[in-house]
Amino acid sequence: MTQEIVTAAMLAIGDELLSGRTKDKNIGHLADMLLLAGIDLKEVRIVGDEEDAIVEALNALRAKYDYVFTSGGIGPTHDDITADAVSKAFGVACDYDDKAMALLGDMYKRRELEFTEARKRMARMPVGAHHIPNPVSTAPGFVIGNVHVMAGVPQVFQAMVDAVIPTLRTGTPVLSLAISCPFGEGDIGTPLAAIQKAHPETSIGSYPRYVGQKFSTEIVVRGRAQDVIDAAGADVRAMIDAIQKAKEIQENHSAEA
Amino acid sequence: MTQEIVTAAMLAIGDELLSGRTKDKNIGHLADMLLLAGIDLKEVRIVGDEEDAIVEALNALRAKYDYVFTSGGIGPTHDDITADAVSKAFGVACDYDDKAMALLGDMYKRRELEFTEARKRMARMPVGAHHIPNPVSTAPGFVIGNVHVMAGVPQVFQAMVDAVIPTLRTGTPVLSLAISCPFGEGDIGTPLAAIQKAHPETSIGSYPRYVGQKFSTEIVVRGRAQDVIDAAGADVRAMIDAIQKAKEIQENHSAEA
Repeated sequence: MTQEIVTAAMLAIGDELLSGRTKDKNIGHLADMLLLAGIDLKEVRIVGDEEDAIVEALNALRAKYDYVFTSGGIGPTHDDITADAVSKAFGVACDYDDKAMALLGDMYKRRELEFTEARKRMARMPVGAHHIPNPVSTAPGFVIGNVHVMAGVPQVFQAMVDAVIPTLRTGTPVLSLAISCPFGEGDIGTPLAAIQKAHPETSIGSYPRYVGQKFSTEIVVRGRAQDVIDAAGADVRAMIDAIQKAKEIQENHSAEA
Repeated sequence: MTQEIVTAAMLAIGDELLSGRTKDKNIGHLADMLLLAGIDLKEVRIVGDEEDAIVEALNALRAKYDYVFTSGGIGPTHDDITADAVSKAFGVACDYDDKAMALLGDMYKRRELEFTEARKRMARMPVGAHHIPNPVSTAPGFVIGNVHVMAGVPQVFQAMVDAVIPTLRTGTPVLSLAISCPFGEGDIGTPLAAIQKAHPETSIGSYPRYVGQKFSTEIVVRGRAQDVIDAAGADVRAMIDAIQKAKEIQENHSAEA
């Protein structure tokens, strides 16, 4: 079976993410959705509302990965500079888009609100960009080249992701098997490394949990074919059983001593 | 008053952050703590458990910012490769640290647990690094150059941040004033841009909220001196009052018509 790998990066934009005022919710959501689509999210960057920082990050990421997804900075206020920065990164003009002006103009007319200069800012995008529809609050995101520019408000971001995913070239989905392990990483590290080595087509991760002063682990076997995952998973379960038995024997010995 | 600017970046490391399995909690926490310390968090990157990706990101960030903070990848399993990657980035050997071996050896002895090869991995660090203490689970983080390497488990990460903050050179703290605004960004965008222009020593952000089908905004004025913040804040409040009055007049006219 040939396996196609499609890669992606995310660029989250906004001073509020770096000051701690807003705790990002979009990265985790995009990660979940790309995983389901079989697209590998390889890198995320967060930068503030500074044109140079956005341009530099965007040009680095769009050259390196198949797709780039941005969040934030496409609203109507002075600190919303994503459309300008993306235009600059692509070397094209940023202008009022006729279709976006019509969409927004109609919406504000219907709501009997003034179509202010600030609101008109939301119709600006790089010349040649295509819309990403916004069923929540109308103002569209946009696609230019391999870059998908979306809103930062989570409800709008999520709606835009839903619209974008079906338009993407997807890879062979990554399948995963999660195995709950009652032992900490110190107990499983050595045998788990051996299992990883024996199953090179899988990627085995171990994620420590620390609850009630005790470490346990979630072991996740990832791969692009079910049989290789099942084989590695069987070895992981056998490892957990073996550690359990060893601990029981040790405790019996301690009790006898 | 001279204002000192100290900058920082964060590098969060772990496949689980990019697959969506783990929703990062450390970025927001570090952002909060650095803000209080007067250190400007300028950029965040998230990369997976891949040596080349870690080395590349680390070298880019440590050259650009005063401090770099990493999270994740310092546990005992095969996918914990941060110590090796940081060593490679600095061009030094990664070796078992005597002091860390003693700390960990004592702890496991006390707990009557075997000091396995996997557990010994947690004592590895770049030669010449200094410890960051870990009051939660003993295995230390470390500092080399301007890079602070910390655990990914939030309880441990937070304890390490608490230990690190007092050792840092801090800047003039950023003060902020948050003003709740009942209007969406489309209403305030144009006047707020004018206020920002009139108060260049402040940074005014506006953060849209979308609750109950209605947009409102939190306006945050940031600066490094209270008087400049207060002056801009007064203008923001006057703007909100003016919009409120304009809306009331408009509604009265509609009612009369």
